[in-house]
Amino acid sequence: MSVRLALAGATGAVGSLVLKMLEERNFDCASLRLLASKRSAGKQILFRGKPITVEVLGPGCFEDIDLVIASTPDEVAADLAAWARAAGTLVVDESGYHRMMPDVPLVIPEVNPDAVANHNGLIASPNCSTTQLVLALKPLHDAGRVRRVVVSTYQATSGAGVAGQAELIESTRAELAGQGSPAVTFAHPIGFNLVPQIGSHKADGYTSEELKLVYETRKILGDDSIQICPTCVRVPVSNCHSESILVETERPISVEQARKLFAEMPGIEVVDDLDRNQYPMPRDCDGSDSVFVGRIRRDISSPNGLAFWCVSDNLRKGAATNAVQIAELLVAREMVPCGISA
Amino acid sequence: MSVRLALAGATGAVGSLVLKMLEERNFDCASLRLLASKRSAGKQILFRGKPITVEVLGPGCFEDIDLVIASTPDEVAADLAAWARAAGTLVVDESGYHRMMPDVPLVIPEVNPDAVANHNGLIASPNCSTTQLVLALKPLHDAGRVRRVVVSTYQATSGAGVAGQAELIESTRAELAGQGSPAVTFAHPIGFNLVPQIGSHKADGYTSEELKLVYETRKILGDDSIQICPTCVRVPVSNCHSESILVETERPISVEQARKLFAEMPGIEVVDDLDRNQYPMPRDCDGSDSVFVGRIRRDISSPNGLAFWCVSDNLRKGAATNAVQIAELLVAREMVPCGISA
Repeated sequence: MSVRLALAGATGAVGSLVLKMLEERNFDCASLRLLASKRSAGKQILFRGKPITVEVLGPGCFEDIDLVIASTPDEVAADLAAWARAAGTLVVDESGYHRMMPDVPLVIPEVNPDAVANHNGLIASPNCSTTQLVLALKPLHDAGRVRRVVVSTYQATSGAGVAGQAELIESTRAELAGQGSPAVTFAHPIGFNLVPQIGSHKADGYTSEELKLVYETRKILGDDSIQICPTCVRVPVSNCHSESILVETERPISVEQARKLFAEMPGIEVVDDLDRNQYPMPRDCDGSDSVFVGRIRRDISSPNGLAFWCVSDNLRKGAATNAVQIAELLVAREMVPCGISA
Repeated sequence: MSVRLALAGATGAVGSLVLKMLEERNFDCASLRLLASKRSAGKQILFRGKPITVEVLGPGCFEDIDLVIASTPDEVAADLAAWARAAGTLVVDESGYHRMMPDVPLVIPEVNPDAVANHNGLIASPNCSTTQLVLALKPLHDAGRVRRVVVSTYQATSGAGVAGQAELIESTRAELAGQGSPAVTFAHPIGFNLVPQIGSHKADGYTSEELKLVYETRKILGDDSIQICPTCVRVPVSNCHSESILVETERPISVEQARKLFAEMPGIEVVDDLDRNQYPMPRDCDGSDSVFVGRIRRDISSPNGLAFWCVSDNLRKGAATNAVQIAELLVAREMVPCGISA
């Protein structure tokens, strides 16, 4: 059966991309409604060549909707979930608000598709920096049991939305002109600079973004004994997050084995030939739905360690693509409409 | 006694800065000769208000010179050392050529000053990314014995000299204009991009820059049992290298203790208040001789681990400042002239 779909936060950086993915991937829907804040309501957006008028996201907006893909700020997500529940509408939520709730599955379709079965009206999509990490960890975890991860990120400004990308351009132009450079979206000017803080101070000197990497990874892999030390850094790159990852496993995995495991994992592409200067880079991964892995090598500081470099389009697989894949999975498993309501 | 000094590679990014440091720090020299490749010979450069004509660096150029600070490419350093030896001239070498030779002290004056005593006519200054790492490791090593280090670098384009910095500007301007962007100094365009390769493939999937971090650190700290896993990445920053560092020590060091150890270490400045968005960043460290440390926190993935973020001006403490400090140390210990000759 064909789904009555809604897209909440349709005019944001990720929302716009979700719309594009629905077109690209020929998502089968009987109807599509676009919802956003008052500011964007009334706007017309083309979908499959036909204009759709953006409506206000608010109480009662989910009547006659089977499924909503929501790309809103955390503070909107709580209300949205209540409105959806009242209407019996199933939610795929990209915000951080529900991810760690015990009755909310946190899903990467290539990693833990079966987790969707336990939903209670809402399925969450992980944070962008988590998704690429976990997709890369999954085959290693299955083969050798991941015990510890040390990850340092190099995160693009698109992680802070359209405003973040615009601020990078503005700040870069100002620096090139020898002028002072603005910082609104970020805590400090980002042009030709690095900001070793993403999110706010949460606990023990770690930021909210860093602790997402810890807790979301454990939840998706279903293993709370995995130890993770994260460092999240904003870099002057427009789009695509990169991560320097060191993994220690219980059972040793050779470099050759790891390369094979990565290559066989759905959603991963291996780009790894240092002698020919080949490895994943943000400029090459922009616009792709894959997670790219390279610089695969033995960790020379521990017996069962592997080190590698991982890049992915954080707006796509890190957000929009993963949400649409979850929606596809729900439809394929005939879980829409969900039959749950308040 | 006052030293007859020469500066080899006087017109390069680091050489120019050495000249500036000699002025700033009032280095006491009876005379100064500036040496460079044929291309730069004949040029006049001001030192303490007086013009000095750049001479050709070549055989016989070190007659009547007590001490030379050399900032040349590796391929020039071997010849330079031979010419200096023939003239009985002591060399402070910033190139990578001699660093790992057993009879060459590799010196950071705040860390291992006494190593200069064992020189055989030449003292080497470490690679830029090593210097800031080792300066930060030293107090932790003394207090708790460093056993393992995982380091991911965020290295500025100035590490590849003036040409690297110019290529960043050129590449950034091209990207802003929506044009293809050149890559000459770097393997790939660096504007708004990350290149996870510095140097060439050396062994086991590691680059020359990465293995310098391993071997130079062990040599300077005098402990070959320290295990290090390095990842070196070029970022679109003009100057100042940054490093995400995780250290495991034999004896535990608390965050409070680490902060105190860093604060008391000569050459280190602590900038660490996440709640007030305070941590070291390239744009703030440019032009300083210190190594800046922040984001100091417990490694939540191991019992005896500490994580922190470290930024330093790679042209200054990473190169020019350290070399001038070695020269000052040699003069203070009355080791110039050295009395060694072929």
